[in-house]
Amino acid sequence: MTNRLRAAVIGAGYWGPNLARNFAASEQWELAAVCDLDEARAAKVARAAGGADVETSVDTLLARDDVDAVAIATPARTHHPLVMAALRAGKHVVVEKPIADSAEAAREMVAEAAAGGLVLMTDHTFCYTPAVLKIRELVESGELGEILYVDSVRINLGLVQPDVDVFWDLAPHDLSILDFILPGGLRPASVAAHGADPLGAGKACVGHLYLPLPGGAVAHVNVNWLSPTKIRSFTVGGSKKTLVWDDLNPQQRLSVYDRGVDLRTQAADSLERKQATVSYRLGDTWSPALKEQEALGAMVGELATAIHEDRAPVTDGAAGLRVLSILEAASRSLEVGGDACVVEHEPELVGGVA
Amino acid sequence: MTNRLRAAVIGAGYWGPNLARNFAASEQWELAAVCDLDEARAAKVARAAGGADVETSVDTLLARDDVDAVAIATPARTHHPLVMAALRAGKHVVVEKPIADSAEAAREMVAEAAAGGLVLMTDHTFCYTPAVLKIRELVESGELGEILYVDSVRINLGLVQPDVDVFWDLAPHDLSILDFILPGGLRPASVAAHGADPLGAGKACVGHLYLPLPGGAVAHVNVNWLSPTKIRSFTVGGSKKTLVWDDLNPQQRLSVYDRGVDLRTQAADSLERKQATVSYRLGDTWSPALKEQEALGAMVGELATAIHEDRAPVTDGAAGLRVLSILEAASRSLEVGGDACVVEHEPELVGGVA
Amino acid sequence: MTNRLRAAVIGAGYWGPNLARNFAASEQWELAAVCDLDEARAAKVARAAGGADVETSVDTLLARDDVDAVAIATPARTHHPLVMAALRAGKHVVVEKPIADSAEAAREMVAEAAAGGLVLMTDHTFCYTPAVLKIRELVESGELGEILYVDSVRINLGLVQPDVDVFWDLAPHDLSILDFILPGGLRPASVAAHGADPLGAGKACVGHLYLPLPGGAVAHVNVNWLSPTKIRSFTVGGSKKTLVWDDLNPQQRLSVYDRGVDLRTQAADSLERKQATVSYRLGDTWSPALKEQEALGAMVGELATAIHEDRAPVTDGAAGLRVLSILEAASRSLEVGGDACVVEHEPELVGGVA
Amino acid sequence: MTNRLRAAVIGAGYWGPNLARNFAASEQWELAAVCDLDEARAAKVARAAGGADVETSVDTLLARDDVDAVAIATPARTHHPLVMAALRAGKHVVVEKPIADSAEAAREMVAEAAAGGLVLMTDHTFCYTPAVLKIRELVESGELGEILYVDSVRINLGLVQPDVDVFWDLAPHDLSILDFILPGGLRPASVAAHGADPLGAGKACVGHLYLPLPGGAVAHVNVNWLSPTKIRSFTVGGSKKTLVWDDLNPQQRLSVYDRGVDLRTQAADSLERKQATVSYRLGDTWSPALKEQEALGAMVGELATAIHEDRAPVTDGAAGLRVLSILEAASRSLEVGGDACVVEHEPELVGGVA
Repeated sequence: MTNRLRAAVIGAGYWGPNLARNFAASEQWELAAVCDLDEARAAKVARAAGGADVETSVDTLLARDDVDAVAIATPARTHHPLVMAALRAGKHVVVEKPIADSAEAAREMVAEAAAGGLVLMTDHTFCYTPAVLKIRELVESGELGEILYVDSVRINLGLVQPDVDVFWDLAPHDLSILDFILPGGLRPASVAAHGADPLGAGKACVGHLYLPLPGGAVAHVNVNWLSPTKIRSFTVGGSKKTLVWDDLNPQQRLSVYDRGVDLRTQAADSLERKQATVSYRLGDTWSPALKEQEALGAMVGELATAIHEDRAPVTDGAAGLRVLSILEAASRSLEVGGDACVVEHEPELVGGVA
Repeated sequence: MTNRLRAAVIGAGYWGPNLARNFAASEQWELAAVCDLDEARAAKVARAAGGADVETSVDTLLARDDVDAVAIATPARTHHPLVMAALRAGKHVVVEKPIADSAEAAREMVAEAAAGGLVLMTDHTFCYTPAVLKIRELVESGELGEILYVDSVRINLGLVQPDVDVFWDLAPHDLSILDFILPGGLRPASVAAHGADPLGAGKACVGHLYLPLPGGAVAHVNVNWLSPTKIRSFTVGGSKKTLVWDDLNPQQRLSVYDRGVDLRTQAADSLERKQATVSYRLGDTWSPALKEQEALGAMVGELATAIHEDRAPVTDGAAGLRVLSILEAASRSLEVGGDACVVEHEPELVGGVA
Repeated sequence: MTNRLRAAVIGAGYWGPNLARNFAASEQWELAAVCDLDEARAAKVARAAGGADVETSVDTLLARDDVDAVAIATPARTHHPLVMAALRAGKHVVVEKPIADSAEAAREMVAEAAAGGLVLMTDHTFCYTPAVLKIRELVESGELGEILYVDSVRINLGLVQPDVDVFWDLAPHDLSILDFILPGGLRPASVAAHGADPLGAGKACVGHLYLPLPGGAVAHVNVNWLSPTKIRSFTVGGSKKTLVWDDLNPQQRLSVYDRGVDLRTQAADSLERKQATVSYRLGDTWSPALKEQEALGAMVGELATAIHEDRAPVTDGAAGLRVLSILEAASRSLEVGGDACVVEHEPELVGGVA
Repeated sequence: MTNRLRAAVIGAGYWGPNLARNFAASEQWELAAVCDLDEARAAKVARAAGGADVETSVDTLLARDDVDAVAIATPARTHHPLVMAALRAGKHVVVEKPIADSAEAAREMVAEAAAGGLVLMTDHTFCYTPAVLKIRELVESGELGEILYVDSVRINLGLVQPDVDVFWDLAPHDLSILDFILPGGLRPASVAAHGADPLGAGKACVGHLYLPLPGGAVAHVNVNWLSPTKIRSFTVGGSKKTLVWDDLNPQQRLSVYDRGVDLRTQAADSLERKQATVSYRLGDTWSPALKEQEALGAMVGELATAIHEDRAPVTDGAAGLRVLSILEAASRSLEVGGDACVVEHEPELVGGVA
């Protein structure tokens, strides 16, 4: 089919095979090549995806005219040079999270994409799950009202990672979802991070993030490698309704509660003292049906559509940069004992599609 | 029965009737009197408890020789004068939480009881529930190992209180339980409090406390008035086992997981770089049976036993003071945007029973 | 208030106090008297209900002109003589379940009420809970479509009763609810009962009832005294939607699933063989909010309204008789090893209000 | 490795690939061949399993000297001829359930295996899951005491099968598990089956089986294609403890309750009337950790061990025959409206290993 876009996957490790499989299965894409220094590994991934060229040199790959976009699934420290090279070669790019190993590097990448009129996408896979797509839809539609608080809990007996703490390991998921569902993205003025290392592992294994949101709202994220119970819950408290996503309950993943507190503040007496009048709503609960759909399939679809429509994808490079900026501020907060640290945000980028 | 102690209840409002009923039902106590400015109300409580004298003057009550102890169930701002008067009249005292409206006032009360050789008890009712008594026993016995983290969640659609924020309304429960189960009580060096008032109620309605514990451990408390779902869970992560108390699951209130992460740090190579070796335990889960028993019954029993044995009760005045000191520090933290604030602890009091 | 009806409660044992309290609290009723052979017990119940006459003779009570209705809360074997006497004295009657100790006795009672133009009500308390009232409403409205199957599970560690088996102890609840929610009441042509007595208690401790319903549907009831887990679930599978009532889940007592199987049967080929075409609906789940309301309060309200409107109450004597007839058939089935036994139903009674 | 056994898989449809993969992965087996009339399909399965010969003729396959055992994964109606041919060719056999399409056919197969001294195994896969292996171990060890009742619920929105009813589709799982865990296997004297076809599908879509067990115990099986909720629970009520297997709760799949009813029957008075004395145990709950292990891997291991030890496997042909005999009796019961029908059991087979 002539109007299919052609993608190449760079990196045939843990995540690359999933990307390759989804490009191959998509009606909008053709899998052109799989690239890895380890030729045998690349060949295995290409074969499992139903066939594609095997490349062992990124330079050779990027020099090809028949590749429209590259998906980069290599270690974080390599993202910056690879993405920059790909953008300079005129390729659209989707890159694993974290988008880079420093916000500064990410900023350059976003600027490069904007300058070149190319799509730069961050692979925030969770955002393309049916549950998160539905949450975004419900927030956007106003069904929940104003957002009052968000609480995200992601705890489990986890691998103590050799190179990153529990924040960098797990919180990118929560932060990318928050960025995706909040109107205008996640732009907290500051972040406070509290971490504990009770095992003496040399890094935080239990962590909490506090992110003030506009209008007095707050987001709280709890990540934990030491919990024997597994919890993945995400609550969006709204002024009208409250949504709870329990990812481990396949029979009722999303619940929307028409329950809440209404507050009217009024002048209460001649001294003009304010008095709060509180009332409660105790309405129905509703659990929307969700499509069965693989998240990565929706992700590669969005990449194609963004390229065709010459617009930024919903999880663009700027989203990846916002998540990274918050993680960096969280690390600074951790160093100063949990005091809130300012998050540096970018002005809105103009003129590009990243 | 001649060797029963005799108690009087001061305050016939919300909680007084429960105290009166439990003193009347106890084999160690006789209910001598119920005291309230509102005579009819006092009379109703006395009658419902099976009969007792009715008093409308605290002075008259405290002047009686046939009253050994008074239980004070009046508003917090009246605790200090009433407790001081009772102690000066030679009565043992149990007082509702918070023990006073300031740590300074509480400090005086504790000192007065110590000076007088009298028992001063804080009615931390939750500590006398079968679940919390079992948690304390499991921690003390070493069954859980070293405590690594504690997480307490107490959220529900709640009454927005006119005079206190969500921390002062709900967190005393969590803090008093923490104080009860931790060996040596809850004595964090500092506390960080993050609160949100997204409804514009003039006070925090959503709150998180972060309390560093000895050995790198941490306690986190989440209280929330705006949640449409009700959660009351309390997790104690230990180096050997982890305990989860789910108070809303009557069929399995406590679960003890023999699961966790073991970490051995060792010199890994000739450069003496440390490397963590991690292993996982995935053992059985155990849910101990709990007695059916009313907490207040156990509380009045402990009061009698402490008086007889001339010792401090397990929830003594010092415990009430520790909880109050933490709440005050939390309020200071809230004012400075969540930065950790020092908690002032008392030296161990010597020579009294409070 | 002059137009209040006046009720007397006969029997001051386990259930009588609840009846007395609800008549006393109702705006439609005045509690005239409490009657028991044990004067002290009657007096205690009358006092707890805020005051009422005490009677020790049923004859005296029934001779009073100022009593409109009597509520009978005495052992089952006394129901027939007491109800008959009350009806003959011109009183409306509500009687505890089972309505009598034999269907024949119940039949007489229903006929007597009809002849006298009096209300005879069975106290099927569960039918007046907010959950069951909502289920009836949803069935009636057609929201669930045709009923395909009903499954009721009521298992728990229970008291092995000295005089009745598990069917007579627990199944009346399930049967009365079924009778209440099914259009036209529960009128199965037959019932099969399977019971087990694995402890050698001399009676069934584990039981299953199987009741064919119109249109090929079926109701199954499982009762069990030996289960260490407590389950109270009631499922109504409909052709449009399916409802699950989980009485032990206070946060989501009722769930309505817009999920199911659609079947179209069509002539499939020239040989006119039928072939089923199946399709699935996987829609939303909805959990209606329920009022907080005591069931017995609604029950005494329905009794008053039925008297005022000169109509049968929704749980009339005929309903009690239907439940009894099914239990008797179940006992016969049990005796013959579980073979289905015919249930004898009454023709519709004409001319009365019972 | 010379002492590995060599297996061939006949049938490359739905289940064959799983068998092939597990033989190939086992240290006790070598996958010799995959056989299917559709050569391409057989080749694909052989390739996915890491390579094996492809055969399109069963005769050719069975004539090979280098094949020790065949696994038959073809439609039920072909089981009898294929198994008989394989046994006559001197091959050990494992066959998908149901073992045959009639008990008579199965009986011949079992006899043939016994005569030839060959292993005939039924692939009751569920019996090799860690949960069921643990249940069997707990029953055998006496931990649960005498079995009082078993309740198995397997309900879900299911495919309405064109050729079988819900009993034949789902109940084989429950019956094979019951057969596996009960000492001596599942040998009820009779079975009563109640089925409903409320959709008019031409076959039962909702079903219940009642199987009396020795000592007054009972097993109940509930299968249902029309339930919008998915339940897979299996309860074994014992005189000492009760076990609940909830297969949809990965965090606590098995729970063992030290709770129950104790009954002592004694001569109660001079009239020698028996009176039951009942007491309750309300002890701890325990949830054993389960290995992570694929059931089919354990199954092929058991097959190899049975061959080496010249003994019947734990799910032998006789087990498959017992399940089939019960299903046939259930179908007869269904035809006569649910009356209990006798199950014809075999005398213990002597002299073979099947």
